[in-house]
Amino acid sequence: MASAGTDGAPVDALRAALPPGAVLTDPASTEAYRHDWTRLPDAGFPLAVVRAGSAEDVRAAVAWAAEHRVPVVPRGAGTSLAGGATAVDGCLVLSTERMTGVEIDPATRTAVVEPGALNAAVKDAAAAHGLWYPPDPGSFRISTIGGNVATDAGGICCVKYGVTRDYVLGLDVVLADGRLVSLGGRTVKDVAGLPLLELFVGNEGTLGVITRVVLRLIPLPSPAATLVAYFDGPRDAARAVVAMGARVRPSMLELMDSAVIDAVEAFSPMGLDRDAGALLIGQSDAPGAARSVEVAGMAECCEQAGARSVFATDDPAEGDLFLEARRAAGPAISARGSVLAEDICVPVDQLPTAMERIEAVAREHRTEIPVVAHAGDGNLHPALVFPPGDADARRRAEEAFAAILRVALECGGTITGEHGVGRTKRAALPAQLGEDVMELGQRVRGALDPLGILNPGVLW
Amino acid sequence: MASAGTDGAPVDALRAALPPGAVLTDPASTEAYRHDWTRLPDAGFPLAVVRAGSAEDVRAAVAWAAEHRVPVVPRGAGTSLAGGATAVDGCLVLSTERMTGVEIDPATRTAVVEPGALNAAVKDAAAAHGLWYPPDPGSFRISTIGGNVATDAGGICCVKYGVTRDYVLGLDVVLADGRLVSLGGRTVKDVAGLPLLELFVGNEGTLGVITRVVLRLIPLPSPAATLVAYFDGPRDAARAVVAMGARVRPSMLELMDSAVIDAVEAFSPMGLDRDAGALLIGQSDAPGAARSVEVAGMAECCEQAGARSVFATDDPAEGDLFLEARRAAGPAISARGSVLAEDICVPVDQLPTAMERIEAVAREHRTEIPVVAHAGDGNLHPALVFPPGDADARRRAEEAFAAILRVALECGGTITGEHGVGRTKRAALPAQLGEDVMELGQRVRGALDPLGILNPGVLW
Repeated sequence: MASAGTDGAPVDALRAALPPGAVLTDPASTEAYRHDWTRLPDAGFPLAVVRAGSAEDVRAAVAWAAEHRVPVVPRGAGTSLAGGATAVDGCLVLSTERMTGVEIDPATRTAVVEPGALNAAVKDAAAAHGLWYPPDPGSFRISTIGGNVATDAGGICCVKYGVTRDYVLGLDVVLADGRLVSLGGRTVKDVAGLPLLELFVGNEGTLGVITRVVLRLIPLPSPAATLVAYFDGPRDAARAVVAMGARVRPSMLELMDSAVIDAVEAFSPMGLDRDAGALLIGQSDAPGAARSVEVAGMAECCEQAGARSVFATDDPAEGDLFLEARRAAGPAISARGSVLAEDICVPVDQLPTAMERIEAVAREHRTEIPVVAHAGDGNLHPALVFPPGDADARRRAEEAFAAILRVALECGGTITGEHGVGRTKRAALPAQLGEDVMELGQRVRGALDPLGILNPGVLW
Repeated sequence: MASAGTDGAPVDALRAALPPGAVLTDPASTEAYRHDWTRLPDAGFPLAVVRAGSAEDVRAAVAWAAEHRVPVVPRGAGTSLAGGATAVDGCLVLSTERMTGVEIDPATRTAVVEPGALNAAVKDAAAAHGLWYPPDPGSFRISTIGGNVATDAGGICCVKYGVTRDYVLGLDVVLADGRLVSLGGRTVKDVAGLPLLELFVGNEGTLGVITRVVLRLIPLPSPAATLVAYFDGPRDAARAVVAMGARVRPSMLELMDSAVIDAVEAFSPMGLDRDAGALLIGQSDAPGAARSVEVAGMAECCEQAGARSVFATDDPAEGDLFLEARRAAGPAISARGSVLAEDICVPVDQLPTAMERIEAVAREHRTEIPVVAHAGDGNLHPALVFPPGDADARRRAEEAFAAILRVALECGGTITGEHGVGRTKRAALPAQLGEDVMELGQRVRGALDPLGILNPGVLW
């Protein structure tokens, strides 16, 4: 990988290759694009920022970077929680936030989307045609499709509707040498050639820069019925989740532990039961009366797992209140202090064990660790909370962070279910993948980006 | 790629590396493993066949092949319709048919499967736990999971439940240098590292040999309600399909043109309407009463598209009869002569156009081309039928085959929706992918198999 200082770097050539105003080098601008939401203390200082307006701008910027061996940090809305869009010194931050086009084709039930379009904008545009783009990361109102595809973002819907990958039919990508290639298209089944499209979904900006996405849409689901169940502790709730999975297909199955219930009530009182040890919120969007049958099945699983109270409603508005409580968990936790966001995923039968072991990590490292989970998928988001500016507490939180990654692996799981490895977990990646798979990935990356200019420091 | 003659090839070293009886070199055996179902006239003659009994056998065989630069043709049940498991001269055919283990883990709703297990065996084992493995290629009773994964096989269920790719959570793969790597696992969401797992699904045996698969299972669906609609011609039927897709999520949506109806009735009389120009068979497995509502919606779309008759039933046994009629299409067509099996996929709104243009190809090339289609996905299987041994008819069929691939591309589609490129479509691949994407694939393949020993002649 090139080391790129600012001295003598030919930014003039970059300006010449791009439309007026697309290249920013003033300190306020480069500062504004240094960080993503992870706010890593060691974020670098960009040489320049390109705010691309078109695929051609992206192409020109990457070609310039390749010629001058300048590292490129691709960026959507900068909502990465893993440092995936954090600048390195002397890099070009390549933002696609201005490329916001969304076109819906109802006949093929596809959306053609520029990378800077917000996830929510795609959902809204699809809904206008009675169609639905399911993936719903917590950031869906503010994160971009380009970032969602680059990280294979997940969300609450995944338990029934899968992840971003499951909806990507086509991609335009600018490769590390500045070539623009088109992969896939509007067909829903396509096995022509190696699955290169699939290789770019979740590449975290290390193999190419996405300039256009064709997304598969599905008909809008039926209104959901909602289940709410309180438990004495997360272990019981997790047991209920394991039992449900074999019987029904919930469209949502979220878990909040007592610390999250507390945090949400403190942040925005919603009448949650603060005495409970855990809360499960489940939904079924099965059509017609079947949703009540599914929710009744889920309720039975909760009762058998020892729930202290179970509540079910067919009223979508009432259900939405609980969904709002779940969506409030992120802001509520953030309000408690600085946060390291975790994102492990374990085989679903390991959920009770993982919950218990995270409690033990919290005690051992004297760190507050509220846990929300996309429980139906075994995808846990422990949040490591510490007082801002308390270096010792931060160190303990970082140790707890690493300990939770070990818990994930010891449960047969993964260090990241949906946020990506980024910069924050690359040290832990070899422990999961092993030497041979690390080397395999390096070979693929080396074949596609021999100069190593794309998002260096991410993944490895 | 190595040219490997039989002279002096160190088969003794191969025998020494494998258990007794695993290496076959007698002419009857090598002849039995020369062909797959495509029965290409120019199939090569293997140097030897290895019938692997374990991942270690696969590892040893590939390591031997790498050392001696012998091409390896991986093989499951040999049901490829694209020449994907056809021998080349001097190759090692590496069969995994003896590796048939299937273990179901109900708690995580996963199956751990050896590559030689039949698709149907996985379905049966899952069903014993109330679980379901959806992918159902036409060959599901006789094709192996290893082959299904290597080709990303599809089937009838895809319109609602997706393709093989959507169910693969983990893979063990022997790389071209004989190393065994493990990718993914039992977690349903995992974005740690580059998506290498995804790269091996659909690699057609060109990047590695699969030795173990972890599959995601889902609860068994509800019994389906069935819709049957006859049309004057395929164009009307295709219009009904386009309309349905925006309203409901059929669990099956298959089209048969008049030639297929005729062939099925001639092969095994089922009381189909031989006067009709096309038949649509759709199902909904929505739970409870919703299935009737969905089927009623589908019926409405058929009526609006000018169906001459529409029939709906909630009786699963009655519905199964029509599904059997659909499943009989393959054997019924094969009974009419030699067949080149096509497998194009177009954006679903192009279905009417594609059907019309295939009719024109049939006329122009004086070839009988009955068409069945996974219509809901725009995935068409025109069958090019010609009298066995009629060289002129075969030539016309081959020209029609190439013409249909051009139709697919001109409709914005793909030359293969689910069968793979194999050997039969590699000449057409560059027209779809373009020079840059071809080169990109070559780079990835070169990085993983620098000697080019894995399934040479497949893909390119």
